[in-house]
Amino acid sequence: MKTRAAVLWDRNQPWSVEEVDLDPPKAGEVLVKLIHTGMCHSDDHVVTGDMPAMTPVVGGHEGAGIVEEVGEGVTSLKPGDHVVPMFIPACGQCRWCAQGRSNLCDVGGTLMMGVGLDGTTRLHARGQDVYTMVFLSTFSQYAVMNEHSLVKIPDDIPLDVAALVGCGVTTGYGSAVNTAKVRPGETVVVVGIGGVGAAAVQGARIAGAEQIIAVDPIEFKREQAKIFGATHTAASVADATELLREITPDGMMADAAIYTVGVARGDEVAGLMALVSKGGRVVITAVSPMEDTTVTMSLFELTIWQKELRGTLFGAANGRKEIPSLLRLYQSGHLLLDEMITNRYTLETINEGYKDMHAGVNIRGVIDLDHG
Amino acid sequence: MKTRAAVLWDRNQPWSVEEVDLDPPKAGEVLVKLIHTGMCHSDDHVVTGDMPAMTPVVGGHEGAGIVEEVGEGVTSLKPGDHVVPMFIPACGQCRWCAQGRSNLCDVGGTLMMGVGLDGTTRLHARGQDVYTMVFLSTFSQYAVMNEHSLVKIPDDIPLDVAALVGCGVTTGYGSAVNTAKVRPGETVVVVGIGGVGAAAVQGARIAGAEQIIAVDPIEFKREQAKIFGATHTAASVADATELLREITPDGMMADAAIYTVGVARGDEVAGLMALVSKGGRVVITAVSPMEDTTVTMSLFELTIWQKELRGTLFGAANGRKEIPSLLRLYQSGHLLLDEMITNRYTLETINEGYKDMHAGVNIRGVIDLDHG
Repeated sequence: MKTRAAVLWDRNQPWSVEEVDLDPPKAGEVLVKLIHTGMCHSDDHVVTGDMPAMTPVVGGHEGAGIVEEVGEGVTSLKPGDHVVPMFIPACGQCRWCAQGRSNLCDVGGTLMMGVGLDGTTRLHARGQDVYTMVFLSTFSQYAVMNEHSLVKIPDDIPLDVAALVGCGVTTGYGSAVNTAKVRPGETVVVVGIGGVGAAAVQGARIAGAEQIIAVDPIEFKREQAKIFGATHTAASVADATELLREITPDGMMADAAIYTVGVARGDEVAGLMALVSKGGRVVITAVSPMEDTTVTMSLFELTIWQKELRGTLFGAANGRKEIPSLLRLYQSGHLLLDEMITNRYTLETINEGYKDMHAGVNIRGVIDLDHG
Repeated sequence: MKTRAAVLWDRNQPWSVEEVDLDPPKAGEVLVKLIHTGMCHSDDHVVTGDMPAMTPVVGGHEGAGIVEEVGEGVTSLKPGDHVVPMFIPACGQCRWCAQGRSNLCDVGGTLMMGVGLDGTTRLHARGQDVYTMVFLSTFSQYAVMNEHSLVKIPDDIPLDVAALVGCGVTTGYGSAVNTAKVRPGETVVVVGIGGVGAAAVQGARIAGAEQIIAVDPIEFKREQAKIFGATHTAASVADATELLREITPDGMMADAAIYTVGVARGDEVAGLMALVSKGGRVVITAVSPMEDTTVTMSLFELTIWQKELRGTLFGAANGRKEIPSLLRLYQSGHLLLDEMITNRYTLETINEGYKDMHAGVNIRGVIDLDHG
């Protein structure tokens, strides 16, 4: 079949919206009609080359849609089911899934190569194979995905907000709740108020943090952070450090800090290691550039104050459990998702959307995939 | 009263063994007759200036002895009780003790200044005040300590091995059991086979690790590590990395790595971050120099493989629970402590003992405090 999709033909090119060929689902695969897709920074990392990916590639890994057709052997889903694809699958069989740590699922490593489990892609254009983003490629009206990547969600959840939990919201919320393990009454710093950061602020709020300091150089984002639960804001890690000296009892500083900036800066990570208190946790949640980063920090303090630097992927979440749970938190009004969608785009205006992201005007931009 | 003690008069001087004046215990304090004391690297850090301390100072923070006299208000101990001083006290009142995390006890911060809770020292020599090591100063026949620092132990535990659990053994064992949280069947790397490293190897073994790689440039220490449970040895972090590729299933590398080298090297820490697998933990357990250390590592891998860098102090142990527990493990034959004492010294030969430590001939040197 044919589908309209945003293709990246080579690094540092704009997204090219065109008709591509889509093969039918193979065994264990599912054809999904996508309704909405979120614009995550990681797709842009592929454009800039900060994240490795094969090109040409159809982007997008944060979406929501409806099952159109299932391949051979697929029993957990049927046409008409509403689904959220996870950017990391949960095969249920590997040693990580077996431990309830499906965010580290071994199948994820294969899909990250941009192909299905059989090593091939379902996408073709201009006479050649086109790779996928983690075998999802949600910048498309239709996509073939692995059953392991899909979580069924209730029909009454709006698919625009559902799209966000496939990556950004779960990553941010989980970085606070699962990895920083925020406890009631704690003081938490969140650096970078994009989709991940806004969700991290919410995770900290829902976990009962007393003080939440949102750090972003852009005033609009600092203001938005207050909607999600920030009690204080700061323009930089240095400003947050000064603020903490004033607002924490006995200047005890922060219990936890969450770094959501995709282009990680070693000096900011070091600054966070310094601004957490005894027993403090620093969490790195965004996927950083592949090059090594230099972090110059006090290992003396790391030991003597027993600090921790924790990486986290997909918010250390077990998506099959956490995604439905997050959507219930949305329905009960605890988790704000509508408020996270700042602007809406179509496939045709995707490049404008990424321009807006770079300009810092969006918490999250969402693409409505026109099936009109 | 008078006591013979090893005094450091200034940085980079030898220990001077001489008679010093010791005041009687004040309220909440206890006079302890010390029988044995361990030679930990941290006392040497004070000599070199890698760890800050006021001088002159009587060294030593790892010992065991018998209560001689108790000060006003001391109810938990009486003369004749056998005790192990902890290098971090457990006041039982601060927010850390209240959480069962007494290794972060706020009173520890005060005692680290080298004085008692009233801000003064009980030691004097050559007409001036002499500071203490964390208000313990076990390089002395007698010492006045805070009740909060003392753990009562059964009378039938030999005091030479008991001395080791006040610092090195608990630090190493806890770094594996409490901080790396080693699980049965895991692969663990321990770098640096001194007292802390030998205890970390034992912690990993007791926690059920399948493969334990002991890393030390000194062959004698690598051989000793096998006594404590190492299944493999390597001379460097680079060698351990190559070995792991061979010996782990699918080259999955290590689940955890524990760094016990007091003079921490950023390149070795980075090497450990690279040699742990998905979900891997790197633990820094030795007190490092105060200067910042530069660690050049992949934050991409930190996130995408969800790795963690964890500092740990006193093995994250709650000493009042863990020290008696470790001594029971010794009595039941699980924890080898006699084997950790390589050589014995007297106060008079303490400088020779530190020379031996630098030469790498000791797992732990122990000083027998001669009461003639």
